[in-house]
Formats: sequence, structure tokens, C-alpha cells
Amino acid sequence: MTEPLIGKNCSISDSVKIYSNVEIEDNVVIGDYCVLGSNEKNKKSKTTIKKNTKIFSHSIIHPNVLIGENSIIGHHTLIREKTVVENDVQIGSYSDVEGNVKIEKFVKLHSNVHIGQHSHLMCFSYLFPYTILTNDPIPPSNIRMGVTIEPFAVICTRSTILPGKKIGFGSFVGANSLVNKDLKFETIGSGNPFKERGNISLLKNPENNNNAYPWAGRFDKNYPENIKDIYQDLRKKFIT
Amino acid sequence: MTEPLIGKNCSISDSVKIYSNVEIEDNVVIGDYCVLGSNEKNKKSKTTIKKNTKIFSHSIIHPNVLIGENSIIGHHTLIREKTVVENDVQIGSYSDVEGNVKIEKFVKLHSNVHIGQHSHLMCFSYLFPYTILTNDPIPPSNIRMGVTIEPFAVICTRSTILPGKKIGFGSFVGANSLVNKDLKFETIGSGNPFKERGNISLLKNPENNNNAYPWAGRFDKNYPENIKDIYQDLRKKFIT
Amino acid sequence: MTEPLIGKNCSISDSVKIYSNVEIEDNVVIGDYCVLGSNEKNKKSKTTIKKNTKIFSHSIIHPNVLIGENSIIGHHTLIREKTVVENDVQIGSYSDVEGNVKIEKFVKLHSNVHIGQHSHLMCFSYLFPYTILTNDPIPPSNIRMGVTIEPFAVICTRSTILPGKKIGFGSFVGANSLVNKDLKFETIGSGNPFKERGNISLLKNPENNNNAYPWAGRFDKNYPENIKDIYQDLRKKFIT
Repeated sequence: MTEPLIGKNCSISDSVKIYSNVEIEDNVVIGDYCVLGSNEKNKKSKTTIKKNTKIFSHSIIHPNVLIGENSIIGHHTLIREKTVVENDVQIGSYSDVEGNVKIEKFVKLHSNVHIGQHSHLMCFSYLFPYTILTNDPIPPSNIRMGVTIEPFAVICTRSTILPGKKIGFGSFVGANSLVNKDLKFETIGSGNPFKERGNISLLKNPENNNNAYPWAGRFDKNYPENIKDIYQDLRKKFIT
Repeated sequence: MTEPLIGKNCSISDSVKIYSNVEIEDNVVIGDYCVLGSNEKNKKSKTTIKKNTKIFSHSIIHPNVLIGENSIIGHHTLIREKTVVENDVQIGSYSDVEGNVKIEKFVKLHSNVHIGQHSHLMCFSYLFPYTILTNDPIPPSNIRMGVTIEPFAVICTRSTILPGKKIGFGSFVGANSLVNKDLKFETIGSGNPFKERGNISLLKNPENNNNAYPWAGRFDKNYPENIKDIYQDLRKKFIT
Repeated sequence: MTEPLIGKNCSISDSVKIYSNVEIEDNVVIGDYCVLGSNEKNKKSKTTIKKNTKIFSHSIIHPNVLIGENSIIGHHTLIREKTVVENDVQIGSYSDVEGNVKIEKFVKLHSNVHIGQHSHLMCFSYLFPYTILTNDPIPPSNIRMGVTIEPFAVICTRSTILPGKKIGFGSFVGANSLVNKDLKFETIGSGNPFKERGNISLLKNPENNNNAYPWAGRFDKNYPENIKDIYQDLRKKFIT
């Protein structure tokens, strides 16, 4: 265990284990009993925790991981090799990111989310508890068909996305769904068997009966001020 | 980390981290690598672990939590701010209690139960593995419509209760249900779509073909001797 | 905490807690913050970790457990009393083995698998993430009807097997199933309600349209070279 590179003004519990080739930037907070990097000799690729990020207790960050700025990693998480987490991401407690995964900026995973290898979570997507993204069409095999979640999509609690499926821009997957086909943009899908249920404008806010989706604009916690503009700009790219 | 208040005859592993404003009463057992309280400066509300309670290893109890007497908290659990746990409660391993939650006396959570914010678990209810209590009707939002579980209700494994729904006194929710409406008292409900399936007296004990429910009286592990009387007394209050 | 028996050439993190009556054979690797055995006075039955086995960080192995040779135990796992794990087994991260369980050689559990008490996992079976094996037909009760998984069976992600049910030799349970009856050998079963869907030969490899099952022979990672012969030999015993 060589001396890790640690930036200024960090708060790192004395019970954290940091193995070699870990770089921690300024203002990072790491809670008790976390493990970063690896003591295995053949696992020495660099792991970086960028500035202003917080990692809560009992979390495990493998070698060859990048965690972006201003991110929050919950308790009891596991983030495996070859994961890239961009800035301003939240990964909830007990979440298991299996590696070879890209998580773009402002993605939020609630607790106990399972991200299979080769998943691609695009910016501003939101996955709720016990979501599973799979990747193997004929388990067990060496085939990996990762799931893609497009920007601003919402996956409600306990949904399972089958290998290689894509959830479209701004779409909404209802709780407990088993998604066995692609879901197009700004569409509601739910159930097992999974079915399209119409445009997201059908979902209403129970407090005022306004349209509940797109959610950008009515929910702004930890998002940029211009999130509505970002939504519209990205919408043009993804809906063509 | 100031000196915590610790009662007599406690067994607290030397690897437990106890931050300031934690009070531990007599005869408490705390296993390895637990974390109680917080080292964050703005998170100093009092956490109390009352007498005769056991907390197993790798568990996390946030500030502003009360854990009652004679309770058992499993391994790898997480109990967040503003949770009140009354006496004689069991919370199984990997369970995630998200905060702003009330768990009344003699409630039992099996392992890997997810209790969303603003849930209210009334006394003697029993939640089996991978139950999820949700709270947000239009995720993501700031609306929190907590779930209510009335006394003696049983929620079987992997059921999901949607926001604001109530499971009635002594009722039975079958495995893998997605509960999207209230379930009245002493009623079986199951499935997705969720349906009422009749009175709990329809469920039989496979060993003797007696009625299996209400369970009070045929199952007594760690319950009061007069549990049948308690059932009848509460039944009068809840079934009117 | 008396001195544990530790073999040659082990790599055991200095943060591992090993309580009395734990024996660790040669070439074992144990990661940070694991806990083996128990400090409770009445829990002193022997736990053995056999040679060449790796246990990753934050795992808990209770007293009265045998972990076989060449096995891999993931992060954040929990293996309770009276569990026998044979050789060459893999148990994924966050998996919860509830005790009184037999796991035969070459079984693989992916992450977050819940194995209820009195389950019997026969050799070469493969359970994918968030599988639950239950055991109580009228919860809560003291009845324990364990699940049996026969050799080479595959249980896909998020399936639930109800108490006492048996999954036949070489069979395939689709994702999100609720298995409420036995599944015979080399058969596809899926859904809720659970239904038989025909012989496993109906499932094709998307890369070449060959039969995907039996998988023995097309997937060989960490299996014996003669796995196809083992399949045929066991097939004769189980399919009669």
C-alpha cells in the first residue's frame, strides 16, 4: 500500500483502505470502512475520485474506475473495474455497478440498483430502487448485450431491462416491469408482458392534475437551473 | 468524536465507530464495523440505542434515530435520519430504512426490505424479504405519500406497495404482488394486476389443514404470551 | 479471540476479524473488513475455509460453516450457520445464504441472491441476480420447506421459487418468474402465473441460432474440461 495522492481539504476516515494508484482530488469526503483500489498485484490500473465528491461508508471502488466531480456514492455500494462515472452523479446505497459501464452526468440511481456490464446510462436518466439492467441473452454465456437508457428516462422501482434493450429519451417505465423490447421516446411502458401505454403526457401530478412528465422543470433538486433548456436541446438530437 | 454515553454490561466491538451524541443503554451488543451517528458537522441530532438491543456487524445507524429495547438489527443494514423504532422490533440483514419512518413494537422485517420515507409500520406487522414500500407517485418528485401497514398484516416476499396505499389489519399480501390500491382488513390480496382474493380464512396450514391466519396464536417466537388477546383487542379498534 | 489456525501462503487483510474455532487452509485470500466466526459465547462451532478460496471484502461467514476449495465469495455477502459449500463454488456480492443450506460443487450464484434455509442447490446449477429461494408456506411459521435446484438448472434474474418446489435437471426458469409448482427436467418455465413453455431446445443462441441449452459445452469459464460428459452422466441419473 503506497501513499495515495490526496488533494486539499479532504475528509477521509482513518478506517478507509486506499491501495496503490488511487488519486483523490480536493474536497473529497470518504466515510468509514470504504475500500478503494485493490491489493491484488495484477489489479493496479488507476482509480480517480474527482473533486467535491462524497463516498459514504462501507463502499468499494475497484481499480480502473473514474468517479466524476460533485458526485454522491451511497453506503454499501460496489463499483467494479472499467466504470466511468461523469460529474454530478448519484449512486444510491447497496447499488452494484458491475463494471464496463458508462454513467453520464446527472444520472441518479436510487438504492439497490444493479447495473450489468456494458450498460450505458445517458445523462439525466433516473433509476429507482431494485432496478436491474441485464446483459446476457442466454445465461450463462460470454455474450454481453448491454442496456441503453437515453437521457431523462425514468425507470420505476423493481423494473428489469432485458439484454440489449433501449429505453428512449424521456420515457417512463412503470414499477415491476419486465422490459423485453425497446421503448421509443417520451412513451409510457409497463407490465409483464411489457406494453406501451401511450405518451408520457398521460401521467398527471396528483397534486394539481398538471402533466407530470417531462419531469425536467417541475423537479430541480441538484440539477442545473437551465434543465428545461437542456431537455429541449437534447430532445432535438434524440427525437428525429 | 467525543466520548459516547455507554451503559453497563454492553458488548461493543472495538471496530465500531460511534460519533458524537449517541447514547447506548445497558446490555447492548454491537458487532464489528458498525457506524453510529455521523462525523458531519451539521448532523449531530441524538441517536439512542435502548437497552438489551443487538446490532449485528456492518450496520449503519444515522443521527436522529431511536432504536427501542430488546430489538435485533441484522448485518449490513442502514437506518437513516428521523426513524423511530419501538421496542422488540427485528430488522433483517441488508434492510434499508430510508428515514422519516415509524416502526412500531414487535414489527419484523426479514432481510433486504426497503422502507421508503414516511412509511408507517404498525405493531406486529411482518414484512418478508425484498418487500419495497414506495412513496413517490410521480418519480422523481418532492411528493412523499408514505405507505401504512396496519397491525398483524403480512407482506410476502418481493411485494411492492405503491405510494400512499394502506394494507389493512391482519391482511395477507401474496409474494411478488404490486399493490396499487388499499387492501381492507383480514383480506388476501395478490398479483399484478393486484386483486383481492377473499378472507384470510381461505389460507390453510399444509400440515393440518387448519386456518393459517390470523397467525397470532400459531406462531409465537419472540412475541408476548398473550398475543391472541392483543390481536382481538386491536381488531376491535381497527375493524369498525 | 484466540489464535485462528491459518495455513501457508494466505493473504488475509489485517482488518479481518477472525473469532475462535476458525480454520483457514493454504493459499486463502480474505479481503478487508470481513468477519469470520462469532464473538458470542454460545456460537463456537467450527468454521473452515478450505484451500485456494477467495473471500472479498465486507463479507460475513458465521460459525458452523464449511467453504470448499477453489471457491470465490463476493463482497458484502452473508453466509449463516450450518451452511456447507462444496468446492469450486461462486457466491456473488450481496448474496445472503440464510443457513441450513447445502451448495454443491460448481454451483454459481450471481450477485444479490437470497437462499432461504433448507435450500439444496445441486452441482452445476446457476442462479442469477436477485433470485429468491423461499421456504415458509404460511409466513410467519416454523415450517421450513426448502427448495431443490437440480444439476445444471438455470434460474434467471429476479425469479422467486416458492416453498418446497423443485427445479428439474437442466431446466431453465425465465426472468421474473414466480415458481409455484415443480418444473420437470430440461424444460423452460416462466411467468407469473408460472407456466411450462416446452423443451429447452427451443431457446436459441442469437449469434448463430444453435440450441442455447443445455449450456454445458458452450460455456466453460471455471468449469471442468469434461463438463459435457458430466452432464450426460448426471442426466442418466436424474432423468429416468
